[in-house]
Amino acid sequence: MPFASSRHKAPNTSISNPMTDSIADRFQRARQFTEQLVQPLSAEDCMIQSMDDASPTRWHLAHTTWFFETFILREQADYSEFDPQFNYLFNSYYNTIGEQFPRSQRGLLSRPGLQQILEYRDHVNQQLIQRLEHPEFLTQYERLLEIGIQHEQQHQELILTDIKHALSCNPTWPKFHDLPLDTTSRNTPSEPITIDEGLYEIGHFGPGFAFDNESPRHQAFLHQCTVSSSLVTCGEYLEFMEAGGYQRPEYWLSMGWAAIQQQGWQSPMYWLNVDDQPMQFTLGGLLPLNLDAPVTHVSFFEADAYARWCGKRLPTEFEWEVAASQTSIADNDPFVDWFVDQGLAIHPTCSPSGFCGSVWQWTASSYLGYPGYRPPAGAVGEYNGKFMCDQHVLRGGSVATQRSHIRPTYRNFFPAATRWQFSGIRLAD
Amino acid sequence: MPFASSRHKAPNTSISNPMTDSIADRFQRARQFTEQLVQPLSAEDCMIQSMDDASPTRWHLAHTTWFFETFILREQADYSEFDPQFNYLFNSYYNTIGEQFPRSQRGLLSRPGLQQILEYRDHVNQQLIQRLEHPEFLTQYERLLEIGIQHEQQHQELILTDIKHALSCNPTWPKFHDLPLDTTSRNTPSEPITIDEGLYEIGHFGPGFAFDNESPRHQAFLHQCTVSSSLVTCGEYLEFMEAGGYQRPEYWLSMGWAAIQQQGWQSPMYWLNVDDQPMQFTLGGLLPLNLDAPVTHVSFFEADAYARWCGKRLPTEFEWEVAASQTSIADNDPFVDWFVDQGLAIHPTCSPSGFCGSVWQWTASSYLGYPGYRPPAGAVGEYNGKFMCDQHVLRGGSVATQRSHIRPTYRNFFPAATRWQFSGIRLAD
Amino acid sequence: MPFASSRHKAPNTSISNPMTDSIADRFQRARQFTEQLVQPLSAEDCMIQSMDDASPTRWHLAHTTWFFETFILREQADYSEFDPQFNYLFNSYYNTIGEQFPRSQRGLLSRPGLQQILEYRDHVNQQLIQRLEHPEFLTQYERLLEIGIQHEQQHQELILTDIKHALSCNPTWPKFHDLPLDTTSRNTPSEPITIDEGLYEIGHFGPGFAFDNESPRHQAFLHQCTVSSSLVTCGEYLEFMEAGGYQRPEYWLSMGWAAIQQQGWQSPMYWLNVDDQPMQFTLGGLLPLNLDAPVTHVSFFEADAYARWCGKRLPTEFEWEVAASQTSIADNDPFVDWFVDQGLAIHPTCSPSGFCGSVWQWTASSYLGYPGYRPPAGAVGEYNGKFMCDQHVLRGGSVATQRSHIRPTYRNFFPAATRWQFSGIRLAD
Amino acid sequence: MPFASSRHKAPNTSISNPMTDSIADRFQRARQFTEQLVQPLSAEDCMIQSMDDASPTRWHLAHTTWFFETFILREQADYSEFDPQFNYLFNSYYNTIGEQFPRSQRGLLSRPGLQQILEYRDHVNQQLIQRLEHPEFLTQYERLLEIGIQHEQQHQELILTDIKHALSCNPTWPKFHDLPLDTTSRNTPSEPITIDEGLYEIGHFGPGFAFDNESPRHQAFLHQCTVSSSLVTCGEYLEFMEAGGYQRPEYWLSMGWAAIQQQGWQSPMYWLNVDDQPMQFTLGGLLPLNLDAPVTHVSFFEADAYARWCGKRLPTEFEWEVAASQTSIADNDPFVDWFVDQGLAIHPTCSPSGFCGSVWQWTASSYLGYPGYRPPAGAVGEYNGKFMCDQHVLRGGSVATQRSHIRPTYRNFFPAATRWQFSGIRLAD
Repeated sequence: MPFASSRHKAPNTSISNPMTDSIADRFQRARQFTEQLVQPLSAEDCMIQSMDDASPTRWHLAHTTWFFETFILREQADYSEFDPQFNYLFNSYYNTIGEQFPRSQRGLLSRPGLQQILEYRDHVNQQLIQRLEHPEFLTQYERLLEIGIQHEQQHQELILTDIKHALSCNPTWPKFHDLPLDTTSRNTPSEPITIDEGLYEIGHFGPGFAFDNESPRHQAFLHQCTVSSSLVTCGEYLEFMEAGGYQRPEYWLSMGWAAIQQQGWQSPMYWLNVDDQPMQFTLGGLLPLNLDAPVTHVSFFEADAYARWCGKRLPTEFEWEVAASQTSIADNDPFVDWFVDQGLAIHPTCSPSGFCGSVWQWTASSYLGYPGYRPPAGAVGEYNGKFMCDQHVLRGGSVATQRSHIRPTYRNFFPAATRWQFSGIRLAD
Repeated sequence: MPFASSRHKAPNTSISNPMTDSIADRFQRARQFTEQLVQPLSAEDCMIQSMDDASPTRWHLAHTTWFFETFILREQADYSEFDPQFNYLFNSYYNTIGEQFPRSQRGLLSRPGLQQILEYRDHVNQQLIQRLEHPEFLTQYERLLEIGIQHEQQHQELILTDIKHALSCNPTWPKFHDLPLDTTSRNTPSEPITIDEGLYEIGHFGPGFAFDNESPRHQAFLHQCTVSSSLVTCGEYLEFMEAGGYQRPEYWLSMGWAAIQQQGWQSPMYWLNVDDQPMQFTLGGLLPLNLDAPVTHVSFFEADAYARWCGKRLPTEFEWEVAASQTSIADNDPFVDWFVDQGLAIHPTCSPSGFCGSVWQWTASSYLGYPGYRPPAGAVGEYNGKFMCDQHVLRGGSVATQRSHIRPTYRNFFPAATRWQFSGIRLAD
Repeated sequence: MPFASSRHKAPNTSISNPMTDSIADRFQRARQFTEQLVQPLSAEDCMIQSMDDASPTRWHLAHTTWFFETFILREQADYSEFDPQFNYLFNSYYNTIGEQFPRSQRGLLSRPGLQQILEYRDHVNQQLIQRLEHPEFLTQYERLLEIGIQHEQQHQELILTDIKHALSCNPTWPKFHDLPLDTTSRNTPSEPITIDEGLYEIGHFGPGFAFDNESPRHQAFLHQCTVSSSLVTCGEYLEFMEAGGYQRPEYWLSMGWAAIQQQGWQSPMYWLNVDDQPMQFTLGGLLPLNLDAPVTHVSFFEADAYARWCGKRLPTEFEWEVAASQTSIADNDPFVDWFVDQGLAIHPTCSPSGFCGSVWQWTASSYLGYPGYRPPAGAVGEYNGKFMCDQHVLRGGSVATQRSHIRPTYRNFFPAATRWQFSGIRLAD
Repeated sequence: MPFASSRHKAPNTSISNPMTDSIADRFQRARQFTEQLVQPLSAEDCMIQSMDDASPTRWHLAHTTWFFETFILREQADYSEFDPQFNYLFNSYYNTIGEQFPRSQRGLLSRPGLQQILEYRDHVNQQLIQRLEHPEFLTQYERLLEIGIQHEQQHQELILTDIKHALSCNPTWPKFHDLPLDTTSRNTPSEPITIDEGLYEIGHFGPGFAFDNESPRHQAFLHQCTVSSSLVTCGEYLEFMEAGGYQRPEYWLSMGWAAIQQQGWQSPMYWLNVDDQPMQFTLGGLLPLNLDAPVTHVSFFEADAYARWCGKRLPTEFEWEVAASQTSIADNDPFVDWFVDQGLAIHPTCSPSGFCGSVWQWTASSYLGYPGYRPPAGAVGEYNGKFMCDQHVLRGGSVATQRSHIRPTYRNFFPAATRWQFSGIRLAD
């Protein structure tokens, strides 16, 4: 039982560099990092599915493995499957591959056990690594391998947000890990970034990896605006709450007003009062609310209402991208690998002046295809395109994202009522 | 009981012209046209609320009256209310005005009776008309009066779509009216309209009325494309169905695939087989399916899936607007006032080559504010702005829309699963 | 439109006597009494279905007619149906007869109109009356005719309870009728009725009509007990409320406690505070609560909790029947025909010392078949037997029941959470 | 991790005798038997909650411990709690004790871990055993200890039925244990037991333990009837299915017909066709259907419909008790301890001629208090009395019941739609 007893050890991940490291190295690091992340969890923790949108940790461990097996290994004549039933059990939503075990019942599966899932991971890892020595194989599957690594990284983030939600359902407020908080100050004076009216190039370009939904690069006409260089803090958000923000319909989209009535929302997710002290549930258990930290676990509705209350608005994803392209990502930006490397709890602790990391930032943009976008053929075409409806773009990455996973053109997306991700607010004007 | 016994008589509405007619004339015509529309209905028909999204006819009659009373008359010191309880009963969704009787229970109200609602209409009409003689009043309330007229026209359309849905729940397939179908042919050869890459002006300009959501007029960069000059017909859509369109997930957005599974959709709404003959339920009862007519009562999901199956796509609302601005609206275009004037059943009967009328056309665009858009202050600000989330823009008007209500910049919007409106498909490439 | 304008006139129903009047007379009186009851309602009132358990008045008018048509007239070779579609539209739950229009959608049917439904009633009445002159017909169908009359009477009661619920959904608190309240005092000193331990005969006997579920008459062993001769009053029930009855789980069945939490019940149905005055909604509109009147519109759960709070219990239906058999039904007992004859509002106004009328009384007994009970063959067998599961027996009749409909062996039954019937409490010990 | 690796070993439980063994011995055996039962399960298996009605194995392990701690140990001044949070976490439904963690979320708790729950069991066991040496303690708590042991036995049965349901949700059909089936034949000729009309004594008497709901012993008058000496078999039930039993409404209670429509039931629970072979899911995995075995996992509705189809009926619980009192319980009757002692899979494998064991038998009786029944004061009063509403009595015990737990007066009860218990059919006439 490797998970039950051990605790988070000082990690020694040297951060991988997608530009210089071999894909074989990066494959192995990505796979190891997943297992490193789940070290603090017991087999029982890995069972919990606390809502339909979230999955048990054990499912993430298996599904990311299924991805490599299904899209690469199953095409190899000499590959022998670990277990033929896994194709059904661990398919998430790829209709082209076949039927799927119902999403909402993932928490009902105790077999295969965690130990067997880890063996499944090993099996697929070894089968893939031995083939990575063949240059033709590498050439043929480079794009799919890269997608698989990116996919693994996305599920690393979901492992963290899903287990946070799972543990939050337990009235004993269990800790995911017991590590010190970050006390680094990254604050620099906030200076709004001005964007001039004109035509801008939007979308991915150059040699690095990007998802299909970041293309084609295309021109868009932007009007003059300013984008804040800093994120909205918990303290600022508390002012909105104290001004009756959750009680005044005029700040809210109609669907947002309905959502806060139906759900009884009165604050961001995971905030609660304990003996009249504002607290928040974190991966490190119940902690006092840090007023200087960026607000997180807000829905699009709350981000939008806050902006309206300020007399501002959310930036469009194009404005965000143009503003972000004027900045750069630093080695110590608050991404998950930095926290793990430093042996710190995964939690936003300071108001970053950078654009990326800390919290995902809701934009005013609906998640739609760029002009000329067509999903790729085959099952991989189901990755991004079919979700382009009634979802909202978030940009920038969070404390649960790997730095190597993020770029200024990266588009994350969730429905407007989503709160269990590390999602926050950047304003525009 | 004016509604119970009389049948649709040959109408004599001369079509009003918003550019030349006085607003007092247009007010009276709009109000009369509503009552003319409901002539074929009994008091009992006017009671039905067949789903939460639809309202009883009687509610539409009262709510449009409430609108003029609330936004104009209640501000007049010398106005005496018809009944103070109506402010609560007939408020739709204006939180700024006060609480609202629950939407889903509108069908439970039998009091005030239809007769009393008609007296309420008369009361408000008279109170308003006598004030319209005063130029200062006219100047002060011109914008609100205009909005009230437009609002009345929108509810005229809803009266027709809601009663169609209501009657469709009755297994005896009642007819709304018993009038001949249009046999006019408007077909002209379909020639795709080409739009060149470049910057275009989008949004309302000039002296006529427009809603706030059509502004500000602004520049947008469009890529080269073509927009079809004709609508997709029932016959063309039937080919998609016969090619297994509803059984193949690769054509569908993820939410669309879920919707057709959950709802059991296998065809557009109101289509059914009777003794192996394809039929459709219409305002004139059960009729054979006309393969040459534009397909209607499809959701955004179905429009999008059909386009994908064709290897095409839906136009964005900007592409639609640019294409539409190259056409003009003719006197005999298939709008509701033309049908009423001709004494014809309200039903799409031919494949129009024009851009407007017949069926609303789903676009690829989410319903969002234009750059620089801010909702107006006060209760009227709740009209359009607060719905800018997870809705999809439709353009062009339908057989249930008044011609004077439509312009190329007009933006209609509904959730993606909506089918009870007269909604159809125009393709782009 | 006979219903819209007229108001309740002084009635002149001489009460029918099932022992002496011919069945033809009684058939006609029963049918007329239904129409007399609905006089105060508009066609629109008759449309409302305010919950799945209730039906629109118009449906009751049609369904009772359907009953005679289906079980008697359709068997006659020379009978010509009024409309063949009605067999589907107005079948309530007789699977043996055929499929049924969905119960929860009865409020969506505006056609046939009320006028046509009244013509349907006339048609069936005339067809039946002309056949009643033939003695063979009378002999053959006497039992079915009697069931049809009893069935009509049951729906008369449902018309009143359903319209009360329907009107209660209207925030203007409409009155069903505007008649004076009963100020008669029937109070006599309450003396508990003692039942000695021993074997008793239970169930119907003798020549009069009874439903199948009142048979077979059989022996049952009862233990010694006392049954109260008076009903629990609103004032007594208020004491329970003020003692925290609705907040203390120890008084409640587990399902009852869950029900009051989920439904938010804090008092009997239709009670509300207006300006700190306890009021109740009645068929005569909003009235002050009468503390001396029997409490009504309580569920089985509330009756049971009240009894527990008193240290008493509800009688079993056998105890009730034995106690009731020691009393008799008086001409001026508070049944619906007495109220109508007196021109009084239908509402419990005094604490009756009699056993029958005023409010139905929840018993401790589940609704099950008596020893040896077998449902009759054919569709009529669906009348009572198939509901013998998870329902609770009520005895005694109410202000909405006809006196000729009640006898000491009569078993009414409803689920434990039912509150919209005139249901109250009699205690035992 | 005692559960993860070990498999079911040959057990050596000598069956306890409630009449001769000390309560201390019986306490220890009951506690050990629970742990023995869960041996085949992994910590992950113990997490699953597959429906609201079922609980995770780990919860049963903790709740039974909580019961002894709460009702006995917490009253001892010198007792130190294992963990104060457990009082909230593991209270099932005792409102008198305090609030309860929501039942439907029991599957979301991974902490305390299984290991800690087992330590909790040890802690409470030791604390209790050391006190059992004091005669005054024993005297004072004998009744509560006895209830605690009976309670533990009830949860042993639930552990088996709940894990069976949990594993059945896994499409790989996991086995709970891999043991041989019973091939013993217990069949003796079926001879109906005749009960003569007359007064009978019903309910518990004598020195042994019984629950409050089995008292007071009282007289009841029974009519002449016969009760079958054998249970309905799978083969007999299959005939009902093949005769269209699930398609013909005339055999069903109204609620039963609704249930089979809504749930899509076409056979008993856990039956399925694999390659056209009738199979059933069991605690030993997927097995061929044994036509000679008693049918099990049927609801009250199915039992009742089957009986009606046969022209018979279910016995009342009084008839059952009188018939059962003419039989005796043998050492090798099919109860769980016999299966465990023999090292056989827990599964009904033969048609028993005895009255008890194998499957619980639905009776025609609603679960109500006997004449004069009053629930005990205090929290223990919540054990049985508050569930006396809309539940149905089952008698006889099953393959998952301990022999020492059963007696002819024992009343089990479940809602009519319950199928996950080992419930079957005995007929009467």
